[in-house]
Amino acid sequence: MGLKKHILVIPGDGIGTEVTTWGKAVLEKIAKDFGHEFTFDEALMGHAAIEATGSPLPDETLAKAKASDAILFGAIGHIKYDNDPTAKVRPEQGLLAIRKGLGLYANLRPIMLFDELLNASSIRPEILKGTDILFFRELTGDVYFGEKKRSADNNTASDLMVYSRYEVERIAVKAYEAARLRGKRLCSVDKANVLETSRLWREVVQEVAKRYPDVETEHMFVDNAAMQLIKNPKKFDVVVTANLFGDILTDEASQIAGSMGMLASASIGDGTGFFEPIHGSAHDIAGQDKANPMASILSVALMLEISFGLQEEAKRVTNAIDKVLKAGYRTGDIADSSTDKSKILGTTAMGQKILE
Amino acid sequence: MGLKKHILVIPGDGIGTEVTTWGKAVLEKIAKDFGHEFTFDEALMGHAAIEATGSPLPDETLAKAKASDAILFGAIGHIKYDNDPTAKVRPEQGLLAIRKGLGLYANLRPIMLFDELLNASSIRPEILKGTDILFFRELTGDVYFGEKKRSADNNTASDLMVYSRYEVERIAVKAYEAARLRGKRLCSVDKANVLETSRLWREVVQEVAKRYPDVETEHMFVDNAAMQLIKNPKKFDVVVTANLFGDILTDEASQIAGSMGMLASASIGDGTGFFEPIHGSAHDIAGQDKANPMASILSVALMLEISFGLQEEAKRVTNAIDKVLKAGYRTGDIADSSTDKSKILGTTAMGQKILE
Ligand SMILES: CC(C)[C@H](C(=O)O)[C@@H](O)C(=O)O
Ligand SMILES: CC(C)[C@H](C(=O)O)[C@@H](O)C(=O)O
Repeated sequence: MGLKKHILVIPGDGIGTEVTTWGKAVLEKIAKDFGHEFTFDEALMGHAAIEATGSPLPDETLAKAKASDAILFGAIGHIKYDNDPTAKVRPEQGLLAIRKGLGLYANLRPIMLFDELLNASSIRPEILKGTDILFFRELTGDVYFGEKKRSADNNTASDLMVYSRYEVERIAVKAYEAARLRGKRLCSVDKANVLETSRLWREVVQEVAKRYPDVETEHMFVDNAAMQLIKNPKKFDVVVTANLFGDILTDEASQIAGSMGMLASASIGDGTGFFEPIHGSAHDIAGQDKANPMASILSVALMLEISFGLQEEAKRVTNAIDKVLKAGYRTGDIADSSTDKSKILGTTAMGQKILE
Repeated sequence: MGLKKHILVIPGDGIGTEVTTWGKAVLEKIAKDFGHEFTFDEALMGHAAIEATGSPLPDETLAKAKASDAILFGAIGHIKYDNDPTAKVRPEQGLLAIRKGLGLYANLRPIMLFDELLNASSIRPEILKGTDILFFRELTGDVYFGEKKRSADNNTASDLMVYSRYEVERIAVKAYEAARLRGKRLCSVDKANVLETSRLWREVVQEVAKRYPDVETEHMFVDNAAMQLIKNPKKFDVVVTANLFGDILTDEASQIAGSMGMLASASIGDGTGFFEPIHGSAHDIAGQDKANPMASILSVALMLEISFGLQEEAKRVTNAIDKVLKAGYRTGDIADSSTDKSKILGTTAMGQKILE
C-alpha cells in the first residue's frame, strides 16, 4: 500500500542546508509512520554550485532533478553578487535555469495564517483574520526569460517582456481549476492600461473565464492590487499573475501574513514538482541555528499533497506545526513581546519539537 | 513683490473635475492673500478628450501645457477601456504622452502621515508612526515607453524594458539632492539579480553615490522592498526606482499611509511641472459630491513649493488641512468608527472648510 518515491534535496545557499535538514527529517518520519518508502539524493545549486563546479546549475543536478519524483529546495543567493552588477555568473541563474529546465510554469503560493501568529504581522489583526489567498505566479516566461541586451557602448540595457497565448492559458486554467475547489473567486492581475503583454494576458484570461462560469472573475491593475492586498486581504481568493508581478505581490502578501519564515511554495508544470520555502538564503543568520525550519517543513506538506496525492500525510505535518505553535513555541523571527522567552527555540530544537 | 503665474488646469476624467475645482479655489485664495497674480486656463485630457476630439491628448492641450508655468491635473481613466484589452485609443495614453511631451522624468511622491489619520491605515499605528518617505519614480522610460509588439498571428505580445545611463543618472541625482536635505538615506530599488536594465540601474546609482558620500546608500530588490515597506516603513527616507517598480511601490506605500485621498504627487523635469493627486478617476463616486478634495489641494501645496518656490504659501495650505483634520472633519474615505458622523463632509463642504 505504501508509495515508493525518490526525492532530490537541493539545500542551495545560506540557511538552505539547515532548513532542508528538517524538511527531510519530516519526510523520513512520515515514510516510517505511514509505511512509504522514500529514498533521497542530494545535489548542488546556486552559489554552492558555482564554488564547486563553476556553474550555478550543474548538468548533474538537472539530470538528477528530472529523474526524481519531487524536489525539496532550500534557498539561493549570495550577498557578494548583489553588489556586483557586472558579475556574469550568478547564483540566481541556477534557480531560473531549473525552473525553465523542468518546465515549472506555475508557482503556487498559499498565503495562510496561523491564528497564533496574528500578532506577528504589521497589519491589524481584524483586517487580517480570515485571510486565505492562493497565488498562481507564472514562472517560466515574462521579462525573466526574454532577451537581455547591452548596447555596444554599454550605455543602454534592455530586457524583453514577452508572453505567448499558450503560456497565459495554461496557468489561467490551473488557477481556475483551483478556484473552483476553493472560494470560486479569481483575480487576474496585470497592467493592461500600459502593457501589450498585459492586454494579451487579459484577453486570454477573459476567454478562459468563459469555461468557468461558476467562478467569479475580476481583473485588477497591479498597482491597485498592491494596495488592495494591504487594504483588504480577505477579499482575495485565487490570484493569478505574470512572473514579475507575481514576484513582487507574493512577497508583499507574505509580509502581510507576517511570517516569511512560515510560508512555502510549490512550483509545478508537466514533470517533477519543486518545493521550497519563500524565504531567502539569509546569510546573516546562516550556520547559527537560528533559522525557522517551518517553511521547509510546510514545503514538505505541499509536496506530499500536490506531488504524491497524500492528503492525510500532509495534514499530519501541518497539524504538527499547529500543535507546536499552540503550545507557545516560536523561533526568533515569529516571536513577539508576548512570547514566553523560554519557548523561543533554535532551528534544531524547533525541528525536534515538530518531529515529536 | 507678488509673482505672476499662469496655471493650466486639466480636470481629466471621473472625480477629476470635482477635486481640481477645489485645488483651483485654493490657488485663487492664496494669490489673493499673498498678493500674487495667478491666471488660469483649462484643457482636456483622457477619456474626456477622446469623447470631444478623438485623441487622449489633443495638440492644443500639449501646447497650452508647454506655455504654462505649472499644471494642476485631476485624474484619468474609464472603466469601459479596462475591460476591452483590444481598444486602440485609451485614456491613459494621454497621461503617458504628456509625461513624455513635457519631459517629466521624475515623479515625486511624499508619503507622509497626518497623526489624526493613523487609524485609517490597515497597518498598526506603532509600526506606522513616524513614517516619512519621499519616492522618486522614474517616469519617462522603462517598459512604459519601450517598443510594444504583437506577432502577426496575434498570439505573442511583447514590451521592451529599456533604460539608458543618462536616464538613470538624472533621476538618481535628483533623489540624492533631496536625500541630502532630508534624512540622508537613499534606497535604490531594482531587480538586479534578474534584469539587465536593473544591473545598469545599479551600476549608475553606485557611481552617483560616490558624489554623495554624506548620504547612506542601500540597494534593495523590488520583491524585498514590497515586503520591507509593510514590515518597517519607518526605515525608508528617500526611495528611487524605475517607472514600473515605482508605479507598484508608490501605490502600495500610499495604502500603508492609509489615505489614498490624502496623497499628492509632483512630476518634474526640465520644463513645466505637473501636479496631481495619486488617486484615480473613481467613476463609481464621480459627480456625487463624495470625493476627497484634499489630495488635489495638497498637489497645489507641492506646486507652490516646487514650481514657484513659495514655501510660506505651501505651508499655509498644509496647515489649513491639518487644522480641518484636527477639528475632526473627514470625508467618507478617511472616516473611521470613531468619527463624529456630523463631521463627515462631502467634497464641497470639505473644500469650503479648508478655504476658511
Ligand atoms: C531569487 C530570484 C531570482 C527569485 C525570483 O525573482 O523569482 C526569487 O525572488 C523568487 O521569488 O523565487
Ligand atoms: C494610469 C496609469 C497609466 C498610471 C501609471 O501606471 O503610470 C497611474 O497608475 C499612475 O501611477 O500615475
